[in-house]
Amino acid sequence: MNYYQENHAAFLEGLKAWLRIPSISTLSEHKPDIRRAAEFALNELRAAGLAGELIEGEGNPLVFAEWTGAPGAPTLLLYGHYDVQPPDPLDEWKSPPFEPEVRGNDIFGRGTSDDKGQTYILIKAVEGLLKTRGKLPVNVKFLIEGEEETGGEHIESYVGTKPARLKSDAAIICDTEMFAPELPTICIGLRGMVYAELHVEGANHDLHSGVYGGAAPNPMQAVAEIICALKDRDGHIQIPGFYDRVVPPSPKEREAWARLPFDERDYTEKEMGARELVGEPGIALLERLWARPTFEVHGIRGGFTGEGAKTVIPARAVAKISTRLVADQDPAEATEQLKKAVAQACPRGVTAELKVLHSAPPSLVNPDNRFIHAAADAMSEVFGKPTVYIRSGGSIPIVAAFEQSLGIPSVMMGFGLPDDNLHAPNEKLHLPNFYRGIEAVARYLDLLG
Amino acid sequence: MNYYQENHAAFLEGLKAWLRIPSISTLSEHKPDIRRAAEFALNELRAAGLAGELIEGEGNPLVFAEWTGAPGAPTLLLYGHYDVQPPDPLDEWKSPPFEPEVRGNDIFGRGTSDDKGQTYILIKAVEGLLKTRGKLPVNVKFLIEGEEETGGEHIESYVGTKPARLKSDAAIICDTEMFAPELPTICIGLRGMVYAELHVEGANHDLHSGVYGGAAPNPMQAVAEIICALKDRDGHIQIPGFYDRVVPPSPKEREAWARLPFDERDYTEKEMGARELVGEPGIALLERLWARPTFEVHGIRGGFTGEGAKTVIPARAVAKISTRLVADQDPAEATEQLKKAVAQACPRGVTAELKVLHSAPPSLVNPDNRFIHAAADAMSEVFGKPTVYIRSGGSIPIVAAFEQSLGIPSVMMGFGLPDDNLHAPNEKLHLPNFYRGIEAVARYLDLLG
Repeated sequence: MNYYQENHAAFLEGLKAWLRIPSISTLSEHKPDIRRAAEFALNELRAAGLAGELIEGEGNPLVFAEWTGAPGAPTLLLYGHYDVQPPDPLDEWKSPPFEPEVRGNDIFGRGTSDDKGQTYILIKAVEGLLKTRGKLPVNVKFLIEGEEETGGEHIESYVGTKPARLKSDAAIICDTEMFAPELPTICIGLRGMVYAELHVEGANHDLHSGVYGGAAPNPMQAVAEIICALKDRDGHIQIPGFYDRVVPPSPKEREAWARLPFDERDYTEKEMGARELVGEPGIALLERLWARPTFEVHGIRGGFTGEGAKTVIPARAVAKISTRLVADQDPAEATEQLKKAVAQACPRGVTAELKVLHSAPPSLVNPDNRFIHAAADAMSEVFGKPTVYIRSGGSIPIVAAFEQSLGIPSVMMGFGLPDDNLHAPNEKLHLPNFYRGIEAVARYLDLLG
Repeated sequence: MNYYQENHAAFLEGLKAWLRIPSISTLSEHKPDIRRAAEFALNELRAAGLAGELIEGEGNPLVFAEWTGAPGAPTLLLYGHYDVQPPDPLDEWKSPPFEPEVRGNDIFGRGTSDDKGQTYILIKAVEGLLKTRGKLPVNVKFLIEGEEETGGEHIESYVGTKPARLKSDAAIICDTEMFAPELPTICIGLRGMVYAELHVEGANHDLHSGVYGGAAPNPMQAVAEIICALKDRDGHIQIPGFYDRVVPPSPKEREAWARLPFDERDYTEKEMGARELVGEPGIALLERLWARPTFEVHGIRGGFTGEGAKTVIPARAVAKISTRLVADQDPAEATEQLKKAVAQACPRGVTAELKVLHSAPPSLVNPDNRFIHAAADAMSEVFGKPTVYIRSGGSIPIVAAFEQSLGIPSVMMGFGLPDDNLHAPNEKLHLPNFYRGIEAVARYLDLLG
């Protein structure tokens, strides 16, 4: 048994301690937890033998730590995030979201897979090499942020202003998933996004639907009308110009996707728990998920939604909406297109205003470089199968920032699984992936060194 | 000064005490307040000299009290309700909803106009006659309910099963409004309603909009699509057959409505606080409000509506919706039509179920009877102007029940004002109407006796 295999229990207890901190970045009352979670990561990195600090500024602290004792060897920028999504709806969790619980081969809790568990893989891989050899085969710089779930604006501006300090040859990101259990996977493409609130206002106070129904504008109805104008019943986005820059996948990539092991029925019924899949007709499922933009409504606030009956025409309604963007769409241009489409779809009697909360460009990495090749080899060795290349429908805004500000490619080694319930109740991480992930990252550093 | 004029301060203090009880019938945690509000009314009626009791059964208690010492004289059934609407949004109230406050000539608080204030008018009118003369010119039976805001099912079933106990010649209802300040008004028509929840379900758990967007059904989007299918952008309801039974107002009624004092700009900007009126093109405003059915969305529950960004495709969404019905629409038939239209509009990948919370038929009273004539005369006398006949867009389900189960007409003497903010923040009652209302009801009983 090597160091990594001997320390499974210690790794698990360490991860649990981190998971117990409810570092929810979208809710301001969790600011103290955000700090505790950042300090936890810093302490782990220092204990592993790295020199580090919290980088304070606007927003949540960044955790920076480095070991640069391998002159001449490549330098890797290791990225993860310590913030998590809100846990609601709380009553659907089988165990409390911030009291991690192992059931079978999985650990359940908010942040297990996204992204404390995966960030911990990077920390423990480095720790293992330093504890057993006293040195690393490469130089490493950790940069762990606390705003990934709210858009990651501050890390982007930090990366933009400190290229010298962060100078590296490649970034390693541990925040994606394996395409199937035990199938080593590298992700080379991500969707971008524009997340916004659609504010619709009618009368300046709530009105009685009996007394005023037939004359009063209803912002809740108006929100529905605007939403329906932006996407048709086939899932096709109706924002003028929105698809103009969309680059279709190459025939070679389409072919590789078609070869991936995939059971659509299992995906639909077991993983998603849905009756049937929807989306643009005539476009293959993986292409819809990885290479097509989306428009989604996340929730609509306003009026009365409590128990019983309240016959109110609400004064205002706010819809939380987002679009996912694919290469070569541009968030600024997409935002303008969206704003114009909202203005055009706004019905009489109300005003509609779009407030963008954050946005991120899509990214598509060319897999032909030694950092990605070595990662594929390391994963193949540890998992015993050839590594596949996929894209993800999710967004990791920092990938575009690393490319634009530091000029480096990102290697997305993911150890999550498709049924990890990211952003949903009962988020989990498969423990064999957690332990193998640590070994795979350590092996990767060796191959590069 | 007569008894009524001498007792303004006492009437006001009594009303305030009743208003302080947050008897919100749609929220089950207010059950104890419901009982306190019922007991308050009963105690007032007993103190006035009536014999009464709380009628217990399923639902909230009914307050029943009677004085039947005028053999040969007509018997009136006096109706009001002691329950109120929820006060949210709380932060828009200028004074707390359950701490009544007099500002200028108005008293502000939840229930001031709808309907504790108006029910109190009936109680104090009867009290005044009994205190000053020891007897009444007519027989009276009070029936005050506590579920008007949730559909009034239990009073309807009580009225249906106890026709002998409630036997009367006419019902007096004090729960409507005057068309304009100082313009005595009797309401002869009400809209009915069907209030329902539209439950839409997609996947069996919330999904990440990045990972699944493009394949996952979105119940929030589906709710928007169904809502838009049920009513078009012109406000015309698209439920097949929905308008088939709608009886247009007579030319005579339309003419009378056109003569009512009405400033559309004041109505739009001052009363409603809106930019412009909406609704079916080519149909006059009062007809849209009083003689046309509506479809309204009151709120949509589900997904994420908190601070910040959560990229979730919710597993389910629930819309609170209602339709208002006009003569001769039938709630049962309208419900069937609505259910069919929802099923037809339901998009792929989700299920939609309509759960009706309550319904009430529309009512239209023939004004040619002595009970309505005497009411018009009494109001003209006290207010010094001819009484006008209007309809209301609101619903008072008990009116149909009184007609169907007891065979009696309802006289709707209303003392609210159009800007009373019913069901909204800063509900108020104009105090001169409150005091004159008490005198007008007392004068009415005299005219009938």
